[in-house]
Amino acid sequence: RQTNDLTLQTLCPDRQELRLIQYVSKAAAKTQMEFEYDGPSMKTEVPGPRSKELTKQLGEMQNVGAINFFCNYEESRGNYLVDVDGNRMLDYTHLLHPYWSSAFVNRPALGIMPPENFPEKLAESLLSVAPSGMSRVQTMACGSCSNENAYKAMFIWYRNKERGHNIPSDEDMSSCMINQNPGCPDLSILSFMGGFHGRTMGCLATTHSKAIHKLDVPSFDWPIAPFPKLKYPLEEFTRENAQEEARCLEEVEDLIVQWRQKGRPVAGIVIEPIQAEGGDNHATPDFFKKLRNIARKHGSAFHLDEVQTGGGATGKFWAHEHWGMDDPADIVSFSKKMLTGGFYHKDELQAYRIFNTWMGDPSKNLFLAEVLNVIRRENLLEEVTRSGKTLLQGLYQLQDQYPNLLSSARGQGTFCAIDIRDDATRNSIILKARDKGVLLGGCGERSIRFRPALVFKEYHVHMFLNVFSDVLAEHN
Amino acid sequence: RQTNDLTLQTLCPDRQELRLIQYVSKAAAKTQMEFEYDGPSMKTEVPGPRSKELTKQLGEMQNVGAINFFCNYEESRGNYLVDVDGNRMLDYTHLLHPYWSSAFVNRPALGIMPPENFPEKLAESLLSVAPSGMSRVQTMACGSCSNENAYKAMFIWYRNKERGHNIPSDEDMSSCMINQNPGCPDLSILSFMGGFHGRTMGCLATTHSKAIHKLDVPSFDWPIAPFPKLKYPLEEFTRENAQEEARCLEEVEDLIVQWRQKGRPVAGIVIEPIQAEGGDNHATPDFFKKLRNIARKHGSAFHLDEVQTGGGATGKFWAHEHWGMDDPADIVSFSKKMLTGGFYHKDELQAYRIFNTWMGDPSKNLFLAEVLNVIRRENLLEEVTRSGKTLLQGLYQLQDQYPNLLSSARGQGTFCAIDIRDDATRNSIILKARDKGVLLGGCGERSIRFRPALVFKEYHVHMFLNVFSDVLAEHN
Repeated sequence: RQTNDLTLQTLCPDRQELRLIQYVSKAAAKTQMEFEYDGPSMKTEVPGPRSKELTKQLGEMQNVGAINFFCNYEESRGNYLVDVDGNRMLDYTHLLHPYWSSAFVNRPALGIMPPENFPEKLAESLLSVAPSGMSRVQTMACGSCSNENAYKAMFIWYRNKERGHNIPSDEDMSSCMINQNPGCPDLSILSFMGGFHGRTMGCLATTHSKAIHKLDVPSFDWPIAPFPKLKYPLEEFTRENAQEEARCLEEVEDLIVQWRQKGRPVAGIVIEPIQAEGGDNHATPDFFKKLRNIARKHGSAFHLDEVQTGGGATGKFWAHEHWGMDDPADIVSFSKKMLTGGFYHKDELQAYRIFNTWMGDPSKNLFLAEVLNVIRRENLLEEVTRSGKTLLQGLYQLQDQYPNLLSSARGQGTFCAIDIRDDATRNSIILKARDKGVLLGGCGERSIRFRPALVFKEYHVHMFLNVFSDVLAEHN
Repeated sequence: RQTNDLTLQTLCPDRQELRLIQYVSKAAAKTQMEFEYDGPSMKTEVPGPRSKELTKQLGEMQNVGAINFFCNYEESRGNYLVDVDGNRMLDYTHLLHPYWSSAFVNRPALGIMPPENFPEKLAESLLSVAPSGMSRVQTMACGSCSNENAYKAMFIWYRNKERGHNIPSDEDMSSCMINQNPGCPDLSILSFMGGFHGRTMGCLATTHSKAIHKLDVPSFDWPIAPFPKLKYPLEEFTRENAQEEARCLEEVEDLIVQWRQKGRPVAGIVIEPIQAEGGDNHATPDFFKKLRNIARKHGSAFHLDEVQTGGGATGKFWAHEHWGMDDPADIVSFSKKMLTGGFYHKDELQAYRIFNTWMGDPSKNLFLAEVLNVIRRENLLEEVTRSGKTLLQGLYQLQDQYPNLLSSARGQGTFCAIDIRDDATRNSIILKARDKGVLLGGCGERSIRFRPALVFKEYHVHMFLNVFSDVLAEHN
């Protein structure tokens, strides 16, 4: 049973789980051999021409530095892995049990051995809805990882800009190993009070929505600017709101200058198009345009966190599309409704060093492509715009009817919220609504938020408003 | 179509993706109605007695603070969600298309609405292999998140210990919102040079294996101790190795004292049982026992990162079992081969505030239970011990045969490595082996690592050694 020509994989640890799953599936099959080829067969060098071609294609969209070769999971059988050039190798890395669809069960280490259709599916899914000016996307497993890695990309970009080139000094290389300057530089990310960007330690240093998220966890001395506290409906308070936004923008510039003087320059600014967790706080397109310009002026990257707002709920696929900008940001991060996490970025922010084992889950791209087809075919964004208008009009009416109970109804698309008199009343309303079979969610200090699906139609809005109106009547 | 009694969910944003998937699946079905009930039906309050009972059960294993109710995904149809108490509610949160197995496609927000079998599956899977002294586990989506959240649990535990109770002061609550002391305390995690614990910013501050991981990313001023540089085979150099380990332990204590004096007390110590990414560096059980005692003596939590070593490759399920300790650690983190990420922890380190939306993926628990059954049924750990012995003996022989080329063969179970003369020769050996169909991986500065699957049998070892021997002959 020993052949020198044998393809035998001594295997990186990242692939162990897949081998085990495959073993489980084999144990369940009637005979171990029924899905196996009779031996290995090498046709080209590895990676062969097809793997190289696919690596080049994927390289247009993602960092491919760690890819070994592309796999043809459909042709692979039993212990044999077939690559996209037809090389058949003895391998233990994947699951091919016919009872299970490999796309959902198998979780290839995307960074190392992606499946053949990965570049195509990436183009059909994530890249088909890329924000203006962005042609590259980095997939990640969760929202926190998406933002963490987006921050790392901004830090790397900023340091390369400072150096004038991409080549670190010996001092950079040695000092970073012990967490010290200049290798681990004192750079900062400017964030906004009320923002939420995740719970891992880098993200957490930019999260300022609830104390309970941050308490007892060491953090970074990074600048925190005020987010505009606007009056709603925005169009009725344009003058006051413009003043408030100007105040906040001025503070942003002051902080950038202060932190530069402190020796902790602002490498990037991170902001949500609508502060969601922090209480559905809106700002105007004018505010975001001016903030984008401030970032440009001071040489900081501009990062829009669309983890909550992306995916269509505002009536556009990305909330920032409402601002009508050609160059809205340097980085746009996403998660949740995109099924996979990750971030889009401009070419300049290519981070060859951003990498982890899984890089998200490719099965999610297959789903996302389907979801996007449905959104387009059924004109769901128009539906959202229509339902959202009806919902917000209904909230305005209830707010007129119950002025002591409700205030500040606000929204974009169906991404809506309303303030309740106080926290206790809010919580009572939420419980009473649940008794009537309506599950409501809170956000901020005393807001109720509405996050219907993209398929929430106008008659659903009317049903909801009826129930909500009954509950309010009990609290007046 | 309007009923006041209607159950209508106004939906938190975390569940939007599921609703969309469900919509996609419905669009594919012949008629929208064929899977629907004819209306909502409320039987109990929500959560009902069964949900409460399950929440209690799960509460023995995990933090359940955010759970709304448990779902019966099997009984749910179309737009209707049925909870485990038989309450049927109009809902848009999940996928029930019969073509797709809901366990793999549906990704419930575990933190909020887990499926009915979740406590049972958790007990059958992760908790059936819990390390000694640990009865609780927190699941997470990826390795970095596992360690990040383990660190947060240690910080929270340490601060509660400092306060003498769990109740934060007003100053804690307000200062943490702006990243400042005492709410965001200057605590530290002691890590080891050569360690790898992940790439998000908290983890990265404890990772010291390659500069390329850390370069240009801001970090924390945390203490870094030397990891013992031992001579192999360990049993031939006991005296020198004991001296080296004593030197490192002394340095650990010095660093703990220094950092306390600096005002950055060491809340926790994190270490891998075998430094994997850093070059397969081993230490003796005596070293780990003494280190565990140092942590205890200084009031620091002790965190074993078994992301690489866990799952059986060392011949025991957890590498730390080789040390024979009843109380090996306060926290043991895992990922990779466990199919899901997360960490076990002692009761004292319960962190009610550790939470994220997904909390890992429940479908992985189903698989893991199967994988564990196979490991037990087929005595795979014995197999690993046998194959590992053969592999290491083979490496010793090759090392004797090629003393100028090879040194420091080492391993536990099949978790083995060997040093090559220099980096250039190592890389040439890896490429030549690939030409012969053997994929090898490197680690550290000039090591080759071996990470076969648990089903790697002795005849596979012989096949591998034959190929490897041929490649070495070309390099002598």
